[in-house]
Amino acid sequence: MSVVERYPDRFQIATLAAGTNTELALEQAVRWKPRVLSLEREQDAAMLRAKLRGLGLPEIEIVAGAAGTVKVATHPEVDFVVSAIVGVAGLEATYEAVRAGKSVGLANKECLVVAGELITAEARRQGKPLLPIDSEHNAIHQCLRGGRMDTNKDNNDDDRVNEVDRIWLTASGGPFLHTPKAEFASITVQQALNHPTWKMGKRITIDSATLMNKGFEVIEACRLFNVPPERVQVIVHPQSTIHSMVEFVDGSILAQISVTDMRLPILYALTYPERIRSDLRFSIGDLRHLDFCPPDMSKFPCLALAYEAAGKGGTKTIALNAADEVAVAAFLEEQIGFEDIPRIIEEVMAATPARQLESIQKVLALDTEARLLAKEVVKERRRKGSPIRAIS
Amino acid sequence: MSVVERYPDRFQIATLAAGTNTELALEQAVRWKPRVLSLEREQDAAMLRAKLRGLGLPEIEIVAGAAGTVKVATHPEVDFVVSAIVGVAGLEATYEAVRAGKSVGLANKECLVVAGELITAEARRQGKPLLPIDSEHNAIHQCLRGGRMDTNKDNNDDDRVNEVDRIWLTASGGPFLHTPKAEFASITVQQALNHPTWKMGKRITIDSATLMNKGFEVIEACRLFNVPPERVQVIVHPQSTIHSMVEFVDGSILAQISVTDMRLPILYALTYPERIRSDLRFSIGDLRHLDFCPPDMSKFPCLALAYEAAGKGGTKTIALNAADEVAVAAFLEEQIGFEDIPRIIEEVMAATPARQLESIQKVLALDTEARLLAKEVVKERRRKGSPIRAIS
Repeated sequence: MSVVERYPDRFQIATLAAGTNTELALEQAVRWKPRVLSLEREQDAAMLRAKLRGLGLPEIEIVAGAAGTVKVATHPEVDFVVSAIVGVAGLEATYEAVRAGKSVGLANKECLVVAGELITAEARRQGKPLLPIDSEHNAIHQCLRGGRMDTNKDNNDDDRVNEVDRIWLTASGGPFLHTPKAEFASITVQQALNHPTWKMGKRITIDSATLMNKGFEVIEACRLFNVPPERVQVIVHPQSTIHSMVEFVDGSILAQISVTDMRLPILYALTYPERIRSDLRFSIGDLRHLDFCPPDMSKFPCLALAYEAAGKGGTKTIALNAADEVAVAAFLEEQIGFEDIPRIIEEVMAATPARQLESIQKVLALDTEARLLAKEVVKERRRKGSPIRAIS
Repeated sequence: MSVVERYPDRFQIATLAAGTNTELALEQAVRWKPRVLSLEREQDAAMLRAKLRGLGLPEIEIVAGAAGTVKVATHPEVDFVVSAIVGVAGLEATYEAVRAGKSVGLANKECLVVAGELITAEARRQGKPLLPIDSEHNAIHQCLRGGRMDTNKDNNDDDRVNEVDRIWLTASGGPFLHTPKAEFASITVQQALNHPTWKMGKRITIDSATLMNKGFEVIEACRLFNVPPERVQVIVHPQSTIHSMVEFVDGSILAQISVTDMRLPILYALTYPERIRSDLRFSIGDLRHLDFCPPDMSKFPCLALAYEAAGKGGTKTIALNAADEVAVAAFLEEQIGFEDIPRIIEEVMAATPARQLESIQKVLALDTEARLLAKEVVKERRRKGSPIRAIS
């Protein structure tokens, strides 16, 4: 919103998806006067319709539910869709936006993690860009401009098609970067929620502590840029000054540096292939003491599991994401220990046969199945061992 | 040569300029069997002709002098010319290569410093690239691919044409980065020749100590990328890991990192716009403790003089380069002190009226004039004060 506000001549809000926050929905309907606005529940939609009629704004169409979100994402007056609904809820609308030939900016992580193959294949078919709205993938997108890469081609080992050797995905390392492995079994919820750098939601904070969040980003990079997981390397860089890097076949590396502010990738995505002036300036004086080290996979098995899922693809990434969400919730409720998170995910992944994805509906069905299975595994584990303490 | 050797299917040596080293010229004539090879002196050429006839290679044409170098640079079978002759000697051949529609790789610094306006204007007219073969400008060239920039347009303040906000030219800082200004007057030749990072020729080592070398690079960047000097900022970065950076109007910065090996920019220039695989790998483990600070213009007035010359252009950059060469020679012979170098250059620049460049012949004539003037200024200064000690 603040990006659109800053450049009123350039962007207009045509439609909006507002979830359950009816107060904010009303405010934004009055502010932006969109053609269509969607809410999650029909009763909220009815109330908002009445209020807008009272304010003399009956022309704003208020819709509800999943069908409403799809309507918002595929409206004929929309050129660019920002997909930012958290979780698998945004999946269908994002896929339909791509299918309707919209340019899509992806702020939602799950879209690429659980249905990346379907969404990127459709975007290629449409010849429309999928633009990442998160600092790492946006940085990679920028660095990739330094060399040729045909993301439509699968033969990633042919240098004539793809001049990219490796993608270096930087990771802050999370709060347990320097914690000895022996202490991992006794990590408490409070310790894990105490992220040193960013303030975020609870699930993503735990995912940052286990490096699963970086694992999801590996999968996203594989899908978005059509590269196999062995060409995506995670590198721990606690200062998070360099948002990611690309190494080309000739040995040159391009790195992207900027302030850490989501408005920058949003602006980049909205204006691509152009760049427009902003006041989001990085102070070059902050460029000092950059540290880098490889991640310790034995301390962070979630990252290894994500690499495995990235390679196998399809149903495996659905199992990974669903099991992680369930396991993290169980950890937050102190039902399982920190080291149980990867164990539960591993078990759910092993029990999920590797298959290709057929449709978004199938993805959603498999996601539900994997969650149920993960909850069973959590229960089983609680029967076998007590929480917090190590079990292996 | 080693780059061409590594990719025999891709590159061939069509012609060669060999200077005065007849032994190496013979060896390379036999190894590469060029169509034409030039030497500086006619007597050396005659000798080489005889030797090659004796070896059964009479078809290699041996030429001499400035006309010979031009023949080598403009031969119809040549696609790409590497301009690496040191000093103004390479000027005419480089200009003629551009005029003949060749793609030119620039390893010679003087070409852009003293005749940049003429050479780049001609390259634009021909629609052929001028590719920098030095780590800083090559890095900038790579980073610039991350945004749009029309180097043919002069209106650099129009973001719609040029998305580049600033070029960050990194500098090692030279041996006197941490030396207090008060000690500059007593810097000896030996101290100045003791460069901490690179082993180079004497003039360039002194130019690195005064930061004049970086000043020349500012001028080169202005000419090559058609940007005013205020958009080129020098930043001291002692580790020289990042070879340079480009900051775009949206606030994103792209930085180039690679091993410091001239084969990389040569390969880049030869294959541009493609990249081909090399084994010149940067070890990501070396990416640590990068320091940056602004240059101290009061300690390094040569850098300020170069900025002035870059802005005024034309005859001023000729005066800058010629006076620097003369002043550095005088310093090396202990005729003047370290702090006299910028004073002499300033005096010669002030005495040179600012005019646009008309032709390469005019550039060469002005270069000779400026050198004579600089020698006079050195003599004058020696009369007024004793060497080494401060004079001001």
